[in-house]
Amino acid sequence: MPVYAAPLREYQFLYRSVLKLERYSNLPGFAEAPLDTIEQILDEGAKFTIGTLFPLNKVGDEHGCIWTPEGVKTPPGFRAAYTAMVEAGWPALGNDPEYGGQGLPNVVNLAFNEMVCSTNMAFGMYPGLTHGCYSAIHEGGSPEQKRMFLPKLSSGEWGGTMNLTEPHCGTDLGLLRTKAVPQADGSYKITGQKIWISGGDHDLADNIIHLVLARIEGAPQGVKGISLFIVPKFLVHADGSLGARNGAVCAGLEEKMGIHGNATCVMQYDDATGYLIGTANEGLKIMFVMMNEARLGVGLQGLAMSEIAYQNAVAFAKDRVQGRSLSGAKNPDGPADPIIVHPDVRRMLMDSRAFNEGARAFLMWTALYGDLYLRSPDEAIRQKALDYMGLMTPVLKAFLTGEGFRHISDGMQVHGGSGFTEHFPASQYLRDSRIAMIYEGTNGVQALDLVGRKLAAKGGRAIFTFFAELDECIAAHESDARMVPFTTALRESKAQMQEGAQWLMQNGMSNFDNAGAASHDFLQVFGYTALTYMWTLMAKAAFDGGLQDPFNDAKIKTGRYFIERMLPEAGAHLAKLKAGSESMMALSAEAF
Amino acid sequence: MPVYAAPLREYQFLYRSVLKLERYSNLPGFAEAPLDTIEQILDEGAKFTIGTLFPLNKVGDEHGCIWTPEGVKTPPGFRAAYTAMVEAGWPALGNDPEYGGQGLPNVVNLAFNEMVCSTNMAFGMYPGLTHGCYSAIHEGGSPEQKRMFLPKLSSGEWGGTMNLTEPHCGTDLGLLRTKAVPQADGSYKITGQKIWISGGDHDLADNIIHLVLARIEGAPQGVKGISLFIVPKFLVHADGSLGARNGAVCAGLEEKMGIHGNATCVMQYDDATGYLIGTANEGLKIMFVMMNEARLGVGLQGLAMSEIAYQNAVAFAKDRVQGRSLSGAKNPDGPADPIIVHPDVRRMLMDSRAFNEGARAFLMWTALYGDLYLRSPDEAIRQKALDYMGLMTPVLKAFLTGEGFRHISDGMQVHGGSGFTEHFPASQYLRDSRIAMIYEGTNGVQALDLVGRKLAAKGGRAIFTFFAELDECIAAHESDARMVPFTTALRESKAQMQEGAQWLMQNGMSNFDNAGAASHDFLQVFGYTALTYMWTLMAKAAFDGGLQDPFNDAKIKTGRYFIERMLPEAGAHLAKLKAGSESMMALSAEAF
Repeated sequence: MPVYAAPLREYQFLYRSVLKLERYSNLPGFAEAPLDTIEQILDEGAKFTIGTLFPLNKVGDEHGCIWTPEGVKTPPGFRAAYTAMVEAGWPALGNDPEYGGQGLPNVVNLAFNEMVCSTNMAFGMYPGLTHGCYSAIHEGGSPEQKRMFLPKLSSGEWGGTMNLTEPHCGTDLGLLRTKAVPQADGSYKITGQKIWISGGDHDLADNIIHLVLARIEGAPQGVKGISLFIVPKFLVHADGSLGARNGAVCAGLEEKMGIHGNATCVMQYDDATGYLIGTANEGLKIMFVMMNEARLGVGLQGLAMSEIAYQNAVAFAKDRVQGRSLSGAKNPDGPADPIIVHPDVRRMLMDSRAFNEGARAFLMWTALYGDLYLRSPDEAIRQKALDYMGLMTPVLKAFLTGEGFRHISDGMQVHGGSGFTEHFPASQYLRDSRIAMIYEGTNGVQALDLVGRKLAAKGGRAIFTFFAELDECIAAHESDARMVPFTTALRESKAQMQEGAQWLMQNGMSNFDNAGAASHDFLQVFGYTALTYMWTLMAKAAFDGGLQDPFNDAKIKTGRYFIERMLPEAGAHLAKLKAGSESMMALSAEAF
Repeated sequence: MPVYAAPLREYQFLYRSVLKLERYSNLPGFAEAPLDTIEQILDEGAKFTIGTLFPLNKVGDEHGCIWTPEGVKTPPGFRAAYTAMVEAGWPALGNDPEYGGQGLPNVVNLAFNEMVCSTNMAFGMYPGLTHGCYSAIHEGGSPEQKRMFLPKLSSGEWGGTMNLTEPHCGTDLGLLRTKAVPQADGSYKITGQKIWISGGDHDLADNIIHLVLARIEGAPQGVKGISLFIVPKFLVHADGSLGARNGAVCAGLEEKMGIHGNATCVMQYDDATGYLIGTANEGLKIMFVMMNEARLGVGLQGLAMSEIAYQNAVAFAKDRVQGRSLSGAKNPDGPADPIIVHPDVRRMLMDSRAFNEGARAFLMWTALYGDLYLRSPDEAIRQKALDYMGLMTPVLKAFLTGEGFRHISDGMQVHGGSGFTEHFPASQYLRDSRIAMIYEGTNGVQALDLVGRKLAAKGGRAIFTFFAELDECIAAHESDARMVPFTTALRESKAQMQEGAQWLMQNGMSNFDNAGAASHDFLQVFGYTALTYMWTLMAKAAFDGGLQDPFNDAKIKTGRYFIERMLPEAGAHLAKLKAGSESMMALSAEAF
């Protein structure tokens, strides 16, 4: 049986000792929910996800979704679980009170979402996309649109989707062809085919609100002629009641390697009634609100799946006896020692653990800036928050999913042959999580976003601010002898990241292929540096909390492991980066 | 549609220009088959595998194997393909002419096996295990056993299996419980349960010969009381005709993440008649003949799957148009450029290509030593060959499967969202190949075999010989200006490997956990050094062949890529290795 314990103590440590959320108790959202309350909420969240979603994870994998002419059927139990989730108010946790939300900070919502994803990633994508749809309409919708759609999207009574991809265009949205024809009443008729639409149809909610990118007849070619439309599955009367079925139908489901419990739909729009959001031809701006949120959410999936894979690998490694410890029997009365005694098993477990804890801190640290951007009255803080959100989002998306997948694969490896069978959950974790490196912009696209846009934005203001923050952290703690291993590592790691950034400035502008060639490796160096920073902050908090508490003691030991045995990867990435693009691009395309 | 072109030119290059097989034309096996003949054989092999096995790959994945009370049914088409393979004589390619084999060198057989695995890994495991069974009986069987079993195992008319694992014992064979009770006629009655038996039952062959590890009643506990038995599915009369059904039945099939076309069986032995091979209580020695062969075969799977994944990623990257080259449109008349123009796509393709070509050379170079061990009259060469086979086998198994999996995952990444759907083959390649890191001894077990046994064997003779060979290679070519990038990289890489080996000698003996903690990273450094050596040899051959030939030109460029953009990984592994075991083992098991 799969195991899962929600990382409640980790959240507590991050909230209280690392991020020190009590500093923000005067801000809206934080004010309404003191830390005690937040922790009670997450306690309940753990009970809900473990009690309701976790048992459905394998069910979803085995049954998958089924297409019928009447609509898509989700796996057995999904509808009841979804209803229970909506009734308990979970989807609205971080949403705007004006539309029925509970207004809690996103750092709280993200913690709940981690539990949702760890216990049932495929299920979690339904409310996840719905929330993205909520956010886009909240950002760009008219007052009337907000009034009509937000309350039910907030509560989860209605589902939401994002429709970008078409068969011939994924990353390159400029190629999209779905067309929108203006109608006399101000609405549009939308026609075209969209693919890979997560939750495009299902039986969980009474209505589904599709956000669809389309080109208004006569609009410019390329990305400058793309508009965003609300296309409800069922039209909505002015009183909120449901009207006619709209011409938006699921034409088929994709067969996929994983996340079988989530319906990945081919959506056919035939003269479907749609409502323009915001300004014509500026649809991408609003869609990017949704995309950026989704990218953080996908980074979270990398962490959440690595966490559940780790926990199950630990359980297996403690239970399975095989061979003897190299340093003498640890279970002399048994036929063999549990395999957790073997260094190479430890290596994989510690790699995962040190990554997970660092990644969670990085995600929460960034999410806090998202909260400060929305809630702080201080313009300087809001600007820094916006800069950081832009800079960190591609790193979180790509680093957490790419490295997370490595650790998920290690979780399978700890299981030996058992891991490859479907009797244990390792296979599903590996299969489910692999998509996270791909969707919401492949990790390569994230790396290009980082080096091509985010790094140089506003004269590099965001990254210079980050470097200064790292320097401050080093200066603040390097005189503390206990902290020296961490501050030393942070200084070296920051120097590597700076060297990479300088190389990019010197070589990436004159030859864009150099920037492209360096992008993945720079993102990796960034990720390792960010996690080193997190481990430095966590080490300080753990020392302050006192090592007599085994939790704090384990934090220090895990942080040391990260520095000694994981951070060396950054040096390899820097060396690769500095090799430039020449050997990468030397072969002609025909030579392949 | 999946694509595959057999790497025939690669074999030709390796045979003629790198390994220079004509040097061995006086040896048995080589003498009978000049290079022209070998190349014709592999041409035919390519036609057979592409024409017969490749179309069944997805069929096998989708249908899987089905358990029935009468026996296991393989996927549609498998039996006809198997029969065709046997009739064409492919399984016997490298086998002993005394038992109907064609006696060709293993370097030829391995090339054919690569094509089999690339086109249909799950199918290829049936003849693969059969060959292992053949080899073990060839090594340890009595003349009577050889006469009775080898001809039909050699031809593939009968299948073969290896039975090691029991539910409570995989790596730790000392725990095994299957018992063997001596009978008056010299045979034994075998009783016990074995799991994860590949090809344990199927409908491809008239009989299946199981090799079963069991403990003779009263034998010592642990690994010193394990014997090896031949347990045929159908007993065999003295005239070779089939007799009664033996008490060896498949009790069920595993559901697995991949290789669905291969039957992974729970085997139940109930008073099954078995025949002791070799000496009682010394069964592991003979089983290790089979295991070592199987480990090379699994390393080959890592390469073969990386190759097919690469080829399909290349085809997708040339076909899919999306975005524009950073250095200006490459397909200005089209709506976008093919994604192969993007550096980050190139990075993944070049990583795979440089790995595949290096890995293939490493495998063939090692396999040639296997041939020389069997065929050379020179005792010094035979001893070196045996040393090298022992030293290289764990590296080939673990490095080629572990790194291969990374590249297979990259092959999916190149596909973007398409890669996650089952419409493209990337998912099957990823799912199928993942087992290779696990079976025949997990990669962690390989690493421990390397540092705990192989490195120090005979005073480290094998590795010192290897180091001397690298030095000779450097000395021979460093005065050639064209070769300097390669000899410089080889010198540095060898120095890193030497430093790792010295660290192990100084720290691994006094604290075995240090050896265990360093094992994975040392194996990685070894793998990178071995591939650097291979790239040096290949570069020399390519320069000698002349860069006006695009094949040779691409070899040099790919080799440069390996050195500049992949070899830096070795430094990170060395740094991790030197961190020792302290932080890895610092947490108590209870703290997890």
